[in-house]
Amino acid sequence: MSEDLHSSRTTVERLPARAVYDFDAIAAILDEGYVCHVGFVANGQPYVIPTGYGREGHELFLHGAAANRMLSTAKDSVPLCVTVTLVDGLVLARSAFHHSVNYRSVVLLGEAEKVQDGEKAHALEVITNHIVPDRWRHLRPVNQGELDATIVLRFPIVEGSAKVRGGPPKDDDEDYALPIWAGTLEISRRYSAVNDPKLQPGLAVPEHVRGFKRPGPAR
Amino acid sequence: MSEDLHSSRTTVERLPARAVYDFDAIAAILDEGYVCHVGFVANGQPYVIPTGYGREGHELFLHGAAANRMLSTAKDSVPLCVTVTLVDGLVLARSAFHHSVNYRSVVLLGEAEKVQDGEKAHALEVITNHIVPDRWRHLRPVNQGELDATIVLRFPIVEGSAKVRGGPPKDDDEDYALPIWAGTLEISRRYSAVNDPKLQPGLAVPEHVRGFKRPGPAR
Repeated sequence: MSEDLHSSRTTVERLPARAVYDFDAIAAILDEGYVCHVGFVANGQPYVIPTGYGREGHELFLHGAAANRMLSTAKDSVPLCVTVTLVDGLVLARSAFHHSVNYRSVVLLGEAEKVQDGEKAHALEVITNHIVPDRWRHLRPVNQGELDATIVLRFPIVEGSAKVRGGPPKDDDEDYALPIWAGTLEISRRYSAVNDPKLQPGLAVPEHVRGFKRPGPAR
Repeated sequence: MSEDLHSSRTTVERLPARAVYDFDAIAAILDEGYVCHVGFVANGQPYVIPTGYGREGHELFLHGAAANRMLSTAKDSVPLCVTVTLVDGLVLARSAFHHSVNYRSVVLLGEAEKVQDGEKAHALEVITNHIVPDRWRHLRPVNQGELDATIVLRFPIVEGSAKVRGGPPKDDDEDYALPIWAGTLEISRRYSAVNDPKLQPGLAVPEHVRGFKRPGPAR
């Protein structure tokens, strides 16, 4: 059964044909990304800070890199916007006007709250395994001092929208006859493991690192 | 002569050793990126929208994808935050606590204003050539109807900061002896030209597309 995260605040006003409100489609974009841009307001000024995150069901856990400033103006919760953007390609049309970017993005609105002490280790596990699947169980266990020094925010995935653009340029009908090259520059990402210079001798790159990949766009 | 974009609003509060306020360093990050995340406030709610941009000197031109909503609450100018993030790698430490991301990011604060009609074509040229260098002169010239339908914002690069993290993980001293693989997953991007299916026959991929690249991080 499909869920709808649509609200009047998240209606995509420009190019609504590109808008998606379905939870599964939004979750797929969130699962492919690992850096989000968090927007918050302090003294009327907006701030946008990049940070890592992980998804579990209908919640995001946000690593608290920006938490000090985010939370400094609030008590227990703070209105945020969390945006995840995957850039798949550059769209080169025959006119500047129709140049575009192929992308998949999610914009979520909501109130974040601090994760309580007893749940912090779990939240860190979700974030770690979201960014590098299967990483957590290979690590030295987290200790109490680290948990005390870490702020994690919980953010509900309840109100938001996605926008998706794919495919070739859309030019004006009469421009297709022009002798101008048009098409896309598709972007692919490679991940190369580099040993820590201080690595213990004899340790091979493990499978969860060697096999690291993210799902890509449907071409 | 180096310029300083530092202000009390842009002081990096967390991990200040990673902070950079020098204009040239900030400009280099802006020039490598081509999608920014724009933060604005409407009815107390922050919004973060990805959009394309171009830099010219001490100004950014922002493509108006989000302009309708951004400008709906303002008269001629609106306080924004413009953030550009380049993700260079994932940092896999021996503990979850020291996991990190290698990145270069810029956070700029300021007021954006609409570009006036007589300057719009120039602003579009800056944006187009920022994203795909040398593209503009190959295109069908922009026409008045397109200019009328386009909103471009001008944003001053006067107040902001950059943050940079590079290199291997930094683990706790006693953790280096553990038999846990640590290192980085370095990210490289490839750009592959794909012809528009409606391309006129016989048009080869031009040099400005074939040779497309962005400067990368200093490794």
